[in-house]
Formats: sequence, structure tokens, C-alpha cells
Amino acid sequence: MASESKESPANNPGLHATPDEATKGYHMQQSMFRIKDPKVSLDFYSRVLGMSLLKRMDFPEWKFTLYFMGFEDIESAPADKTEKTAWTFSKKSTIELFHNWGTETDPDFKGYHNGNTEPLGFGHIGITVDDTFKACDRFKSLGLEFVKAPDSGYFNGVAFIKDPDGYWIEIFDVKSILDVTVGAT
Amino acid sequence: MASESKESPANNPGLHATPDEATKGYHMQQSMFRIKDPKVSLDFYSRVLGMSLLKRMDFPEWKFTLYFMGFEDIESAPADKTEKTAWTFSKKSTIELFHNWGTETDPDFKGYHNGNTEPLGFGHIGITVDDTFKACDRFKSLGLEFVKAPDSGYFNGVAFIKDPDGYWIEIFDVKSILDVTVGAT
Repeated sequence: MASESKESPANNPGLHATPDEATKGYHMQQSMFRIKDPKVSLDFYSRVLGMSLLKRMDFPEWKFTLYFMGFEDIESAPADKTEKTAWTFSKKSTIELFHNWGTETDPDFKGYHNGNTEPLGFGHIGITVDDTFKACDRFKSLGLEFVKAPDSGYFNGVAFIKDPDGYWIEIFDVKSILDVTVGAT
Repeated sequence: MASESKESPANNPGLHATPDEATKGYHMQQSMFRIKDPKVSLDFYSRVLGMSLLKRMDFPEWKFTLYFMGFEDIESAPADKTEKTAWTFSKKSTIELFHNWGTETDPDFKGYHNGNTEPLGFGHIGITVDDTFKACDRFKSLGLEFVKAPDSGYFNGVAFIKDPDGYWIEIFDVKSILDVTVGAT
């Protein structure tokens, strides 16, 4: 019976099985993190990972810029500025890179915290690829730093790389996930 | 001309316009953050925000559990455990709640860091809703804490709430975003 599945409310105190009607149409649109240097981050997310810049917004009054990036076909984006904003926010799964102007040239800027050392919090974003090992061979050839190579340690076929600010990015394909999670209860 | 848009490589040093063929099929699947108490977080993300628990994985050897949640129709999930894992990782826009066993009852546990105080890093996840004000009226009636109410400060129509661990969640609808970003250059 579906009600007895591992994901059922019976097995997960606190969980409500039926979403409130009021939440209909909600979708998870973005994950925001701060970046030091847009030139370096735009290069990384577009050249290395294949994301597109969906929308850029500059706020001169507060001296920051937002870069919304994602795996979308940018050719299908409207040319009109306002329509492009609506298009971007209707998409799922974007990252929002937040740039406070000046950090990229500030010798005293200490960098951002990735959440995986004290104080702990945020962990990573995760990207599904076609083939973890093939993807990681390419990442190696591009000189990327690995937190975990796909063939090291536990969870063979799952890798972690670092973005230019040190944030972790998990790399996996669906087959690898099935292999490594077979031991999960 | 499209090449002269605000999002063009000409206006964004570092940006590559054409994704490498090797990245074809990549998609942004998850954002992971650590939680203190799954009972409280599952309640929040399912009852308040309307997410479903797509997949739960327990790793007894390392004493942690992963909860993958998202705005998906759970009725369409396969019943088979392995197929459900593949189904989950083929979805975009999930959150991965990471629970180290025991934090929920540990009187010495100090909580997690949301990235919006020093040391800065991760900022928030963002959820597109049908109507920010309507959604926030409901959140108020549910007793939620606001970082920013939709009608306070700048950016009228955009709100920030807190999840049970203190992580920020931006709440907006597409129309509000158009209104507040009209001043962006």
C-alpha cells in the first residue's frame, strides 16, 4: 500500500501528505548565494557547467547586481526586458548569483563561507549529468578542484567539485545514484 | 540585436554564450542544507509550503537521513524503491534536507547558520507563488516569522520568511517581481 511507503506520513512524523490548495502552483525557483567576482563565476557556470545567463539586474542605488543562471534555452527567451524578467521567474531551478560591487578588487575581502565548515548550514547545489565519470574527466581536463573525485571514498560515481568561491557542487548521474544508494535503508 | 542585450557576452565578461555540447542534458536538481529536526522541517515544508516528500534515504552506518522534497505530484511517483530514486533525481528543483541523527534532542546543539550573518555565503531559496500578498496572509495566520513582510521596506510585493532552522525563503509572484525590478537598470 502506498500509505505504507518509506515516504508516507505514517513513517515521517510532521509530514502532511496532501498539499494545501493555497499552495497550488508554487514552485521552487532559485537558490541564492553570494559571489566575489562575476567575471570568474560567469565563466565557471557558463563555460564549465553549461548554464546560460537568463537575466541580469543591476541595482546602482545599493551597489549590487544579480545574475540569474540556469539550464534553459536562452534562444527561447523574450527580447523585451520586462518579458524576459517574467520568463526568468517562471522557470524552475535557477541559481541567483549575488554580487556586491567591489569585492572582486578589494584586497581586504576575505571571501564567502560555503557552509561546510563551522558554522555549518548550507551544503551544496547538485547537478544531474549524463555520466558522472565522463563529466569529471572533462572537469579534470579543465583544471577543476575536486572535493571528492567520483572514484574516491564511499559513494562511487558521485563527485563534488568547487565553484570559484568555494561552494560545493555535487555531480551525479541517475545510474550512479542508484548504485550508491542501494545500501540506504 | 540579441547580441547587444544586457545578458550578452559582450556586456558580461567571462560569460560564454554557447553551452559546451558535453553539458547537454545537465540540470540543476537540488539544493542541500542541514536541518536540526525532521519532524519540524517536514511539517513546515509540506503543510506550510505545500512540498511533497519525494524520497527519503537513511544511512545508518553514518547516522544521517536525507529528505528530498519538491513541488511534484507524488501520486505520479513509482512505488518501487529503486524506480522512485531514479524518478526523484530526474526532477528539477528539489531541496535536500540533511539530518544528522540526534541534533533534535541534543541540548548542546547550537543550530545551523543561515549564511546571512557573518560569515556570509548562501542567502536563500526562492519560491514563486501565485500571489505574494495572499500567500503571506496565510503565512501570517499560520504564525510564521517574517524577515521582511511583503509591504515593508523596499521591494513591495516581495517577502522573506524563515524556515524552522532560520534559513531564509524568498516569496514572490511574477507580477511583484516585475513591479520591484522595474527600477533595476
